[in-house]
Amino acid sequence: MIVVMKTTATEGQVLAVQKRIREIGFKDHLSRGAERTIIGVLGGVYAELQDEFAVLDGVDTVVRISKPFKLASREVKEENTVVNVGPVGIGDGRLVVIAGPCSVDTEENVMETAHAVKAAGAHMLRGGAFKPRTSPYAFRGHGEKGLEILARARAETGLPVVTEVVDARDVELVARFADVLQIGSRNMQNFALLEEAGKAHKPVLLKRGMWATVEQWLLAAEYILSEGNPDVILCERGIVSHETGTRFTFDINAIPLVKRLSHLPIIGDPSHATGKWYLVEPVAIAAVGAGADGLIIEVHPDPDHALSDGAQSLTPENFSKLMARVRAMSLTVGKPLHPPLVRE
Amino acid sequence: MIVVMKTTATEGQVLAVQKRIREIGFKDHLSRGAERTIIGVLGGVYAELQDEFAVLDGVDTVVRISKPFKLASREVKEENTVVNVGPVGIGDGRLVVIAGPCSVDTEENVMETAHAVKAAGAHMLRGGAFKPRTSPYAFRGHGEKGLEILARARAETGLPVVTEVVDARDVELVARFADVLQIGSRNMQNFALLEEAGKAHKPVLLKRGMWATVEQWLLAAEYILSEGNPDVILCERGIVSHETGTRFTFDINAIPLVKRLSHLPIIGDPSHATGKWYLVEPVAIAAVGAGADGLIIEVHPDPDHALSDGAQSLTPENFSKLMARVRAMSLTVGKPLHPPLVRE
Amino acid sequence: MIVVMKTTATEGQVLAVQKRIREIGFKDHLSRGAERTIIGVLGGVYAELQDEFAVLDGVDTVVRISKPFKLASREVKEENTVVNVGPVGIGDGRLVVIAGPCSVDTEENVMETAHAVKAAGAHMLRGGAFKPRTSPYAFRGHGEKGLEILARARAETGLPVVTEVVDARDVELVARFADVLQIGSRNMQNFALLEEAGKAHKPVLLKRGMWATVEQWLLAAEYILSEGNPDVILCERGIVSHETGTRFTFDINAIPLVKRLSHLPIIGDPSHATGKWYLVEPVAIAAVGAGADGLIIEVHPDPDHALSDGAQSLTPENFSKLMARVRAMSLTVGKPLHPPLVRE
Amino acid sequence: MIVVMKTTATEGQVLAVQKRIREIGFKDHLSRGAERTIIGVLGGVYAELQDEFAVLDGVDTVVRISKPFKLASREVKEENTVVNVGPVGIGDGRLVVIAGPCSVDTEENVMETAHAVKAAGAHMLRGGAFKPRTSPYAFRGHGEKGLEILARARAETGLPVVTEVVDARDVELVARFADVLQIGSRNMQNFALLEEAGKAHKPVLLKRGMWATVEQWLLAAEYILSEGNPDVILCERGIVSHETGTRFTFDINAIPLVKRLSHLPIIGDPSHATGKWYLVEPVAIAAVGAGADGLIIEVHPDPDHALSDGAQSLTPENFSKLMARVRAMSLTVGKPLHPPLVRE
Repeated sequence: MIVVMKTTATEGQVLAVQKRIREIGFKDHLSRGAERTIIGVLGGVYAELQDEFAVLDGVDTVVRISKPFKLASREVKEENTVVNVGPVGIGDGRLVVIAGPCSVDTEENVMETAHAVKAAGAHMLRGGAFKPRTSPYAFRGHGEKGLEILARARAETGLPVVTEVVDARDVELVARFADVLQIGSRNMQNFALLEEAGKAHKPVLLKRGMWATVEQWLLAAEYILSEGNPDVILCERGIVSHETGTRFTFDINAIPLVKRLSHLPIIGDPSHATGKWYLVEPVAIAAVGAGADGLIIEVHPDPDHALSDGAQSLTPENFSKLMARVRAMSLTVGKPLHPPLVRE
Repeated sequence: MIVVMKTTATEGQVLAVQKRIREIGFKDHLSRGAERTIIGVLGGVYAELQDEFAVLDGVDTVVRISKPFKLASREVKEENTVVNVGPVGIGDGRLVVIAGPCSVDTEENVMETAHAVKAAGAHMLRGGAFKPRTSPYAFRGHGEKGLEILARARAETGLPVVTEVVDARDVELVARFADVLQIGSRNMQNFALLEEAGKAHKPVLLKRGMWATVEQWLLAAEYILSEGNPDVILCERGIVSHETGTRFTFDINAIPLVKRLSHLPIIGDPSHATGKWYLVEPVAIAAVGAGADGLIIEVHPDPDHALSDGAQSLTPENFSKLMARVRAMSLTVGKPLHPPLVRE
Repeated sequence: MIVVMKTTATEGQVLAVQKRIREIGFKDHLSRGAERTIIGVLGGVYAELQDEFAVLDGVDTVVRISKPFKLASREVKEENTVVNVGPVGIGDGRLVVIAGPCSVDTEENVMETAHAVKAAGAHMLRGGAFKPRTSPYAFRGHGEKGLEILARARAETGLPVVTEVVDARDVELVARFADVLQIGSRNMQNFALLEEAGKAHKPVLLKRGMWATVEQWLLAAEYILSEGNPDVILCERGIVSHETGTRFTFDINAIPLVKRLSHLPIIGDPSHATGKWYLVEPVAIAAVGAGADGLIIEVHPDPDHALSDGAQSLTPENFSKLMARVRAMSLTVGKPLHPPLVRE
Repeated sequence: MIVVMKTTATEGQVLAVQKRIREIGFKDHLSRGAERTIIGVLGGVYAELQDEFAVLDGVDTVVRISKPFKLASREVKEENTVVNVGPVGIGDGRLVVIAGPCSVDTEENVMETAHAVKAAGAHMLRGGAFKPRTSPYAFRGHGEKGLEILARARAETGLPVVTEVVDARDVELVARFADVLQIGSRNMQNFALLEEAGKAHKPVLLKRGMWATVEQWLLAAEYILSEGNPDVILCERGIVSHETGTRFTFDINAIPLVKRLSHLPIIGDPSHATGKWYLVEPVAIAAVGAGADGLIIEVHPDPDHALSDGAQSLTPENFSKLMARVRAMSLTVGKPLHPPLVRE
């Protein structure tokens, strides 16, 4: 961090900044220019510290140089992290596709979807047993019963299961059933949940907060990593903007930006980011083109009767077409699809 | 809700929509115009249902008419809700001011601040014992020890205490010490936390999510209300936008909009919304001008050494000046300040 | 501007940055710290230069310190600018209110409105003869005929006229009729128009671009000022955001922020910023509370039949009520309303 | 458009709405339901009309059904528009790539770039002679001299020229030199400029306003189309958002959304949308994946010394690598690159 003093700063103001730096246990480095004095701050600077120095008397600007995230940073770990889920290595240079219904509804539907997405080449099954819903009057998931249905779908198909956990108290329960714990957009800064996920012995799929910058997102990942869980998969799922023609704005820039800043794998969720099934395929292809390590796609055998998010769900038939296009793309971008799962 | 069919919709598509309406237990009302067929949907429509009908074959547009929130709605309850905290009625036509440090740091500082804000006319004490922080390396609060400090400050000054709860597991603990449970912006859609707060027997201060629309915010309040807790105080604290000169954008429009849509009291937080102490006073005055029922302001005896958010904290002296201006404003807007607390 | 080199920067990279600084005619100042080398850039740095240095080899971060605007800056001119329009000094410590229809429709309506707003205490008349409209099929104003109507309304009432110019070719024409040239939000970065306005001998009311940061807005003012026209009045009119319950988001923070950064007067437009007549009064009062030097309000004798923006127009009766509240506020904030105009 | 009356609407209020509909020359269609009365409005509804009905007494909600744009709409013209520029048909099922410097600086640089991008397979040359710049102190282009340089580059290479026009008064001048007139993001709602461009006999590349919704963008295109110029090419170039890690947010969703709503060709500008050269290639590939008809890319022989936007310009070498990847992608998505230009 660098503290730039005003041209009018007094000697006493400079000393006060130096004193404050030492009080918090950091080192200072003074540099006097022709017009201004600049004070370097050496130590583990965190995001809020910048604001706190910015208001000291005589200070003009405070600049952070080092990134506030460490364990998530590519500067700290240069090689890509590979998160292993059963036979699939996410981030290992091959594409992974996760598919399934938004919510777990009936066992029949989940089974049908699981078989269909597996047949189309998906590597993992997604499905919500605990659903965060904007309205308290909407369907909020079958809970543990839903987890059991997912487990049976895994037993039948061999597909590992990704499912959301919305409450720190449920991490242990969900981790008992799931292969990957999903943390949803609305919970990206639910720090209690991040910490529990950091203590769990299961990979975590961390969706971006719809309001979050890439830096805030990587700091949320840092919470999980700093608790000792290295297996974080990032998922871009759209941010809020002024555009009203789509549900969210898929931030395609974020994919290569994350790749540059971090070693963590990143996948794209075109279903939530668009909110319209007919936009899912082109945005999925785009995400792969931008360098994503995989996709998570909502599929439902009968979208018109899905208990949630039917508007953005693909039919198995459309999912199958999407997979054919993803397969072609995967070769073009040099990141082939993982082979289909074979039951051992 | 109204389903508008395309001009090209077939008879079968119209029937399919009607069938679907009945399947979910609602009633339909058909109206055939010169150009289009329109189908009214009668029943307790929730937010997601609109999207689900929008993708049915032959459907052009789906319009919600009734608001998705009910208990929070002024249509359901016309008179203003008054939330009583000790002797103070929030929303009773008089202004309330809540002030104190962002984080509880030392007992000395909290006591000093509590006495200072009380002397200046504040009615309640705020202070964070559990702090949500963007970075895992920033100070995250003293937890229960912080709650005890707040309780002692209340014992000494008589000021009721508002403090944040960030984890559904802590609601009982925090409710034991606090007079008002605060739910922060990042947790506005932490539905597990909302539900626990809804079961607590303490008023809840619900901050707006920095990404949330007013409608989503009122739906979050609906979670608390629908669990049986009628004492919700809304708090506008700024939304994300493209402006980088301030921390957030205080949505002043939201104050009169909430007043029109809902009977719940609403206060403003100019400290977080601006992020800069020198913008706090003018935005506080503006919030009162727009019709807010109160303010929550960060005050610290030594902002330069605050453990968090020093940049946006007022000194007791500046808070005192702000209170003088608020007092003058309160008479102009016909919403006088509550009288200062007198120890019984 | 300060160029912070990476810890890994080579000597050659440092030299290349220094060489580049001198090539563009600026001076450099080198400072070597324990970990990093920092290079100060002395000279008239503009906004884009930062990006251009940011991509040089070995550069970590580039920080602007001096503001990119100069003539608009309070650092360059400390005392408030007062823009005189007839007898009214905008920014002289008294509030100004500008009112009138969105579009000039019939002469009768304009006359009726002019008399009504004058009677209620407004100081200037607004009205659009040239209207920027999102759709080519909407009413776009009566052009010169509209200007003549406004001039007759001025002749009858003595109210100076504020009217929009949307085309650089029309500046001369509009300046012949208008007392103040308005540049609308959509044209805030129409630099050809800004330059012509800078050459005109009439004050300019510069609305903020709905996408612009405060810094970009002040740079737009800089265009006008740097052409030799010192009479710029800024107008906050709402920015785009994710909130859909109002037409735009009035950025109340911007008012005190502009006051700190610039000496130019600033007024608020609650009509466009909210898009709903019932939100106009509370947001107007808030703008005054935040320190605005005035207001611009849409008033129409028959909002239901206005040719544009009826939804956000006040009736003369509601405007009169608003003025009573503004009058009370103006005393509270110590910025009394200008006296009503008296015909000479 | 459909006007939904409140459940409490009186007979008189219904009649007043019907009367108003007829006054503006439209037809009304009444439908009385069990709970509500709904009034259909038949006629050429434009965007603002919705707001104007929304505030009438007794009205609950007003819904637009037909899109406000007509000539730009795929409902009106189902087959894709192909814009012919010399031998290149933009939107004809083959990809077009436009490349060149942000600003025209020296003739040598422009020539060198033109030859380099042609060699790499680009089909058209871009370059700014008139530059809109945020700061009045930044380089604003060589004007007519710049146009002459571009014309000489075309004469030497055969590449058609795309260049920006920022002033309605310059349309004729620029059209004399350019093959395609570019209208920049900041001028998307400069309606005077749109109209002049609509009268010009040259194709128009219309960039999206950084604040605009897709609907507002298509309405801007409607301005040009309705003046009689059918040759509009849309260009997505990023929108404003809260993300600060990139210059803008490339709205990838907009590409397939535009394809669905409109018959006009659409290309992507990853240079401005990201602001960082190292993000240009992945976002370019993504745009092609999402269905774009082409790309516009900033290339400069010496980005470190470019007169503008060096940070986001590719070197010819990096552009050549990008073209290799675009070529591979173009086959995968079934939209092959246009063949390289051969001088006749």
